Amino acid sequence: MSQGKNIDKKAVVLLSGGLDSAVTAVIAKEQGYEIYALTVDYGQRSRAELKAASLLAQSMDAQHILMKVELDKIGGSALTDMGIDVPSEEIDGVPITYVPARNLIFLSLALSWAEVLGGQAIFIGANVKDYSGYPDCRADFLNSFQKTGMLGTKKETQVSIEAPILNMSKAKIVKEGHRLGLDFKLTSSCYSPLEDGSACGKCASCILRKKGFEEAGLEDL
Amino acid sequence: MSQGKNIDKKAVVLLSGGLDSAVTAVIAKEQGYEIYALTVDYGQRSRAELKAASLLAQSMDAQHILMKVELDKIGGSALTDMGIDVPSEEIDGVPITYVPARNLIFLSLALSWAEVLGGQAIFIGANVKDYSGYPDCRADFLNSFQKTGMLGTKKETQVSIEAPILNMSKAKIVKEGHRLGLDFKLTSSCYSPLEDGSACGKCASCILRKKGFEEAGLEDL
Repeated sequence: MSQGKNIDKKAVVLLSGGLDSAVTAVIAKEQGYEIYALTVDYGQRSRAELKAASLLAQSMDAQHILMKVELDKIGGSALTDMGIDVPSEEIDGVPITYVPARNLIFLSLALSWAEVLGGQAIFIGANVKDYSGYPDCRADFLNSFQKTGMLGTKKETQVSIEAPILNMSKAKIVKEGHRLGLDFKLTSSCYSPLEDGSACGKCASCILRKKGFEEAGLEDL
Repeated sequence: MSQGKNIDKKAVVLLSGGLDSAVTAVIAKEQGYEIYALTVDYGQRSRAELKAASLLAQSMDAQHILMKVELDKIGGSALTDMGIDVPSEEIDGVPITYVPARNLIFLSLALSWAEVLGGQAIFIGANVKDYSGYPDCRADFLNSFQKTGMLGTKKETQVSIEAPILNMSKAKIVKEGHRLGLDFKLTSSCYSPLEDGSACGKCASCILRKKGFEEAGLEDL
């Protein structure tokens, strides 16, 4: 027996390697799910994220798939198109770091794996507070995806879409991670890390993370 | 002017290299769309399909993206998992050649590209007649996807999902392709081609194609 874990409950967790998805994963684990971590290598600038995702999956005893999806062939985002600069602050409207239909693609891949596994849930670290400009982080979209996904898969496939940090502030997310013993130093949030993999400290994502830890009264190790 | 083509109308066409998607592409072209062909290399057994897709895109003057998506890491289908045999006939229920959530994934990728392009439509060669066991070929699913996709992308993105051969018999599909001057010999339908890329003639897809041409009274070159 593995510490009272209910091995009948399986969840695919979209694990980017960032803070939000890591906290989402430990929440899924707390809820008794066996974790199957899916990380998509979509040609993102930050290769440190992928390394972080592998270490996080390992630390959670999760089966891990690192799947290559060549979204960089489409481009259209500062995160995949080297011709577009990463901004130091988010602007109103849809930010240039938005990757077209990214969460739709990621959820679809996760659903494919969940169907093969016979899993009950997909966990995604979508958040509306800090990324209100991203259309694919809204509850309406996630609810609609669940309906579409159930129509497009086998009758016996019954998977719910779980977004436990959807309405949390960054400070609250940090506190949740701390409460659940997440090793923050394994996570990587920076959009555009330095060559050694360390955070730039200047991009919108770094600034947001710093603020979150400050407001939570915790230290980012 | 390029033969009266309305260059303001752009469509992403999911082009597998098979007969159905090729006919779908020429229908989109007939409707005045500029074609952007998306082919997904998802680890399918048939590598001849990918070659066929490139030749078809070229023959239609279409911009073509061949995108690698490592669905074979998930498995669960005879088309991606070498441990599962390809059957010679389809059975009742969901066939073993069903790739979990494949059309959901493909449509999501197509929508990402359509959003970057500012396109108006996505064309998919889904068909309910011959593949009634595939949950992701049904009109309900396609309609639901359209709603979800619009919720998950920018407000200004307005893309319709077009499945022009959804209710056609294979014979009707063959006739449509013939009417629109499709070069059938560029297409590849076989699930499990021989080493030289030629069709096996024995798999469910080969048999269906043969029947379609017979019923259409046309020769498959």
